Amino acid sequence: MAHRIQGVLSPVVTPFKRDLSPDPERYLRHCKWLLAHGCSGLAVFGTNSEANSLSVDERMLLLEALVQGGVPASKLMPGTGMCALTDTVRLTAHAVKLGCAGVLMLPPFYYKGVSDEGLYRSFAEVIERVGDARLQLYLYHIPPVAQVPISLALIGRLLKAYPGAVAGIKDSSGDWNNTKAVLDAYANSDFDVFAGSEVFLLDTMRAGGKGCITATGNVNPGPIHRVYENWQKPEADALQAGISATRAILQKYPMISALKAVVGHWGRDPDWATVRPPLVELTAGEQRSLVAELTAAGFDMPDLAAPAS
Amino acid sequence: MAHRIQGVLSPVVTPFKRDLSPDPERYLRHCKWLLAHGCSGLAVFGTNSEANSLSVDERMLLLEALVQGGVPASKLMPGTGMCALTDTVRLTAHAVKLGCAGVLMLPPFYYKGVSDEGLYRSFAEVIERVGDARLQLYLYHIPPVAQVPISLALIGRLLKAYPGAVAGIKDSSGDWNNTKAVLDAYANSDFDVFAGSEVFLLDTMRAGGKGCITATGNVNPGPIHRVYENWQKPEADALQAGISATRAILQKYPMISALKAVVGHWGRDPDWATVRPPLVELTAGEQRSLVAELTAAGFDMPDLAAPAS
Repeated sequence: MAHRIQGVLSPVVTPFKRDLSPDPERYLRHCKWLLAHGCSGLAVFGTNSEANSLSVDERMLLLEALVQGGVPASKLMPGTGMCALTDTVRLTAHAVKLGCAGVLMLPPFYYKGVSDEGLYRSFAEVIERVGDARLQLYLYHIPPVAQVPISLALIGRLLKAYPGAVAGIKDSSGDWNNTKAVLDAYANSDFDVFAGSEVFLLDTMRAGGKGCITATGNVNPGPIHRVYENWQKPEADALQAGISATRAILQKYPMISALKAVVGHWGRDPDWATVRPPLVELTAGEQRSLVAELTAAGFDMPDLAAPAS
Repeated sequence: MAHRIQGVLSPVVTPFKRDLSPDPERYLRHCKWLLAHGCSGLAVFGTNSEANSLSVDERMLLLEALVQGGVPASKLMPGTGMCALTDTVRLTAHAVKLGCAGVLMLPPFYYKGVSDEGLYRSFAEVIERVGDARLQLYLYHIPPVAQVPISLALIGRLLKAYPGAVAGIKDSSGDWNNTKAVLDAYANSDFDVFAGSEVFLLDTMRAGGKGCITATGNVNPGPIHRVYENWQKPEADALQAGISATRAILQKYPMISALKAVVGHWGRDPDWATVRPPLVELTAGEQRSLVAELTAAGFDMPDLAAPAS
């Protein structure tokens, strides 16, 4: 499985026009910037992409726009997990057909307190219905938002039943003990573990993981990538401290709106700030203080204001 | 607003064929049985309908099947609140065009900890985009599942901005203090409050509410309706005690699977038990003990096994 995607992936923020429709042009530009500046892959349609504020058709159109616009499908790991089985199957089959490297799959997240048996059936049904040997499924564990966790036992059962399809996990629990437990149990089973935040990137690499899929990859991909490529070198801890410090600044604000404000500021394109309800953009004051703090810390997004192609 | 729907509404359970596709024929039959046996309306596509396991297209086809099959649209209050703004608008506009009495709208429920401002914008945007004076919007407050509450302040702001469209609320918080606070604040503002469980039906009627929208309305509509029509009579408390006792039995089991098992048993149609993942059906043992307990308590679903039309 040497061809599997590894390194730093960004859950790409989704630009909206003023009428709240998705903006494929700004989207393509940002995706190309990310790939040119440290991201080895794009986890489009993640939590930080406002993916769950998009319809199935909106996601499919955006994904096609990326591939047609020259983003290699081999770099793409779109989020395809929806509440409805039929939606998840439709999105997943579409991504596989386009040749995407993998899909990042939320569990169905409306019903709470569901059993591992029910979640197993959900994932199994999707794999069976998609029925394509190219499917590389990454489980998306994000209990603070989805409120539906993916347990160690569930991972084991899925890996045993579908060893070719179940490729890895993004752990966005924010709990290093959980990431460590997954790594200890399955890192030697052809199962690729990605930290859900760059704060855990170095620890994840040292414990046998494959990288991180992180919100701030949208704005700070270069420095995060340097931790990834130098994790075995003496300077790794200092590099890690640097990216954790940048994240600490961003985390003081609502993350998605903050990321969009930063892209808008460094790209000199303030319309980037637009979010879909139920999110709200940063206030002018919040944006000013965020930019001031980042600037004081030496943060930059090189080449962003110039067209990427 | 005398024409507004009142009384006992059932969030109709959605039957699936063995291949997990929705079954319009069983669905129509159950809807007609409910209307003939105590329900004054049908809150199709509620939580207990596994609505969030259905795609937008699946919901639209089922709704059309009901109306074409002879269920009056004036009895229908479909759930139309999705995570994605565009999906909610599409479903809501479709329901209004079909002439539905109202829609029951979840807030967008993926992102947690969102602000009242963001939720206000969500509902406002839907109302504006649907742009139809016939829209009667019922807010769906179900924090134990959606994890996104609808605050008193948000209700007030929406009522002020859209007094003709914002028609009421279903309170499924399970917290009588919250229902009472909503009733005290808005029951005199042309705002219809429905309890989310028949356990609170009598209290809700006495405090100025308009009825209940309750899971167990699927199996026990007659006795629940008798509480509704007799709430001012001396026997009301005894009637309430009876329906609360029936609910207590059902609540020992996972509710949706239990309702389907009961419909399947009393309708002599065991295929009704099928649920979509992530839910799982009751075990044979659970089903036996549930049926035994209900039977011992004198429970019945009259005329269910005979065709309704």
